[in-house]
Amino acid sequence: MTAAGDADIKAKIESANKEGIHRVLTSKPFLVSVKPAIDVLPGMKRRSIFHAGPPIEWRRMCGPMRGAVVGTIIFEGWANSREEAEKLVEEGEIELSPNHDHDAVGPMAGVISPSLPVMVVKNEKHGNVNYGRIVEQKVQFGAFDKEAIASLRFWTEVVAPSIEKALGKIRGQGGIGIDLKSIMARALYMGDELHNRPSAGTALFALSIFPHLIETSEDKEQLSQITSYFAANEIFFLCLAMAACKATMDAAREIEYSTLVTAMARNGVEFGIKVSGLGNNKWFTGPAGIIKGLYFPGFASRDANPDMGDSAITETAGVGGFALANSPAILSLVGGTAEDSLKYTRQMQQITMALNDTFLIPMFNFQGTATGIDIRKVIKTGILPIIDTAIAHKEPGKGMIGAGIVTPPMEAFKSALRGYAEKYGL
Amino acid sequence: MTAAGDADIKAKIESANKEGIHRVLTSKPFLVSVKPAIDVLPGMKRRSIFHAGPPIEWRRMCGPMRGAVVGTIIFEGWANSREEAEKLVEEGEIELSPNHDHDAVGPMAGVISPSLPVMVVKNEKHGNVNYGRIVEQKVQFGAFDKEAIASLRFWTEVVAPSIEKALGKIRGQGGIGIDLKSIMARALYMGDELHNRPSAGTALFALSIFPHLIETSEDKEQLSQITSYFAANEIFFLCLAMAACKATMDAAREIEYSTLVTAMARNGVEFGIKVSGLGNNKWFTGPAGIIKGLYFPGFASRDANPDMGDSAITETAGVGGFALANSPAILSLVGGTAEDSLKYTRQMQQITMALNDTFLIPMFNFQGTATGIDIRKVIKTGILPIIDTAIAHKEPGKGMIGAGIVTPPMEAFKSALRGYAEKYGL
Repeated sequence: MTAAGDADIKAKIESANKEGIHRVLTSKPFLVSVKPAIDVLPGMKRRSIFHAGPPIEWRRMCGPMRGAVVGTIIFEGWANSREEAEKLVEEGEIELSPNHDHDAVGPMAGVISPSLPVMVVKNEKHGNVNYGRIVEQKVQFGAFDKEAIASLRFWTEVVAPSIEKALGKIRGQGGIGIDLKSIMARALYMGDELHNRPSAGTALFALSIFPHLIETSEDKEQLSQITSYFAANEIFFLCLAMAACKATMDAAREIEYSTLVTAMARNGVEFGIKVSGLGNNKWFTGPAGIIKGLYFPGFASRDANPDMGDSAITETAGVGGFALANSPAILSLVGGTAEDSLKYTRQMQQITMALNDTFLIPMFNFQGTATGIDIRKVIKTGILPIIDTAIAHKEPGKGMIGAGIVTPPMEAFKSALRGYAEKYGL
Repeated sequence: MTAAGDADIKAKIESANKEGIHRVLTSKPFLVSVKPAIDVLPGMKRRSIFHAGPPIEWRRMCGPMRGAVVGTIIFEGWANSREEAEKLVEEGEIELSPNHDHDAVGPMAGVISPSLPVMVVKNEKHGNVNYGRIVEQKVQFGAFDKEAIASLRFWTEVVAPSIEKALGKIRGQGGIGIDLKSIMARALYMGDELHNRPSAGTALFALSIFPHLIETSEDKEQLSQITSYFAANEIFFLCLAMAACKATMDAAREIEYSTLVTAMARNGVEFGIKVSGLGNNKWFTGPAGIIKGLYFPGFASRDANPDMGDSAITETAGVGGFALANSPAILSLVGGTAEDSLKYTRQMQQITMALNDTFLIPMFNFQGTATGIDIRKVIKTGILPIIDTAIAHKEPGKGMIGAGIVTPPMEAFKSALRGYAEKYGL
């Protein structure tokens, strides 16, 4: 390539990334609806199960994702036992496909099936609509016992329809829905990094929706159950943070020449990224890592499944591990020191395009969080994104065993850069 | 005094302080009830108004406290105008007395009158019961217009009776009430220092009480109003934090020989402290300071009233300014840098007796907050307690104009040490 050609492409990259990060920073995700996946999710069929991370076939799936698929099949009533469920999958009756390829995200195994109500999040600024799976502590970690299925049922039959009714009232009064970006900005002042610790987000969301829930509910006992659900389930807001981050990053997808990472996601075997300028259908992958963290009593790293879940969409959008300095309390969950949390947060500035203008870090005198990963900067600096995450037991049916911090494989970024060079003839 | 006598009194002081700080750290304040002051407050008479800080007569009261007394008289229906209200006071019809001399605390002017429902907080460990005035943004800052009176009425007629009903249900089921210490500990992980910033505490309290409110409420519209009230009124939890801190410190009052500060409070003219070993009726005072802080647009320090309110009970109990490191977001309200907040928080360790075992600072790798001010250490180091506070306009009827940070006058501590020397013959 000539020097002039080189300067030309550099200008194109700069311009594309400027547009990309502009779309990210100006995004305005609102929760507008909660609907069964079959009614809203693009490509969801009668017997689809969408999952976290890049594509993976059943025989290569990790233990907890298999367990989650089993749990989901039992939840849908397609089978009544692990054996029956596995047989169905092995016979090719179930279509497995990544959430991210259907505008959606899900925590851990991330499994979404037709009946499961999903969060419908609209980016009011850019118009794109995205979908998030509920967060719970059982099925998504690979459990499929009665209690696990019951938690999905309670969500499906009690909580989700009530929230939808409340949102219906807001829409009926000319409102859009619940402003997630505003809740996220406030939660970041309240000890959340919005990935492993979304406690304040949960409380703020609950306070926002309660007056509407009360007005639209006919059943006092149910209403009391739902309010208790939010009080007891601090992790709830993670699914809204994830869907909001997905809606934020999806606005910047498919910008020619842009080196912006628009998704990072793991299926428990592979870690994959998507890059704006390389199209939305292309995954660049490497092996999923083992998480450094703290284990529940009785468990150790030998029990751990490698990194799993679409929740790294939070880091992709500049929160989660990129906002650790706002959430030193999380260290009691994931390990490490307060100094680490400050160091990591600063380090992310070296691999990103901008400081967020809405998500701020009071401890850095209100500087914004590092936002918009640039594949070129990751390769150049050798610094990998810091991701907060939970740890699933490697066997199906066992569930969550800890939480910690992980980085993606450099291989995924190298592969993306190679893909970029091929596509743009560098 | 002989060397042996000197060693003897030192041992007595150490032993007394050990007992004092033990009582502070083991305190377990619960919100047990919300009742009209006349029904519960010791010494509250038909025409009493209790106020913040040390004792002060009407003619020496500052503008905002006069305004608050006027607002309270109008709220009680004893008069219909400022002129009528002031006449009543001047004629000696109203008994004015400090909250702290009646086991109570109130924010800013702190005015408590017979009809006003107060928070009843019981220290489950030590048995003492204390009382806290509601926090609102009007009357306590000296406003007495219609809107100001309406906010007290809404509390008195709608919110307080509803909370009392919900607490009644908890008591009826064998519960004690709402565990305030647990909420405070969690809120300190969520960006609160529990004085100027009690936002997380408000959200957590709301989530704790809502299921019970829903079950005990008959009126859907009122219920919706109350949930909206908590969502819109982030400062609410301050009154519970204050009452909890009062119940915590009152457990350590009147321990012979103890040099522990059990109260710090200001009436807008004078700053007063109480010391455990010097009895509960003795105030040691100095002039109230001017607050360094940030003013609302259009206001400046020339408009500011000196330091006012019983809210420094939070610092007395080891939170508020003593937990600034947990709440860097507060700096957007009170000014200063993140480094200041860390520095102040560490500095408080030099004038206190212990690190709290429940109120922790994640940013200091979960070290406890500095708790239990020792008058000897203040004098010896010259370091004054750091107090977060709001700023009232110096004229009656004007209200809140900013927030900031203030220190007590050293004179109050010197006076206490003189009092100590006199009493114990040092």
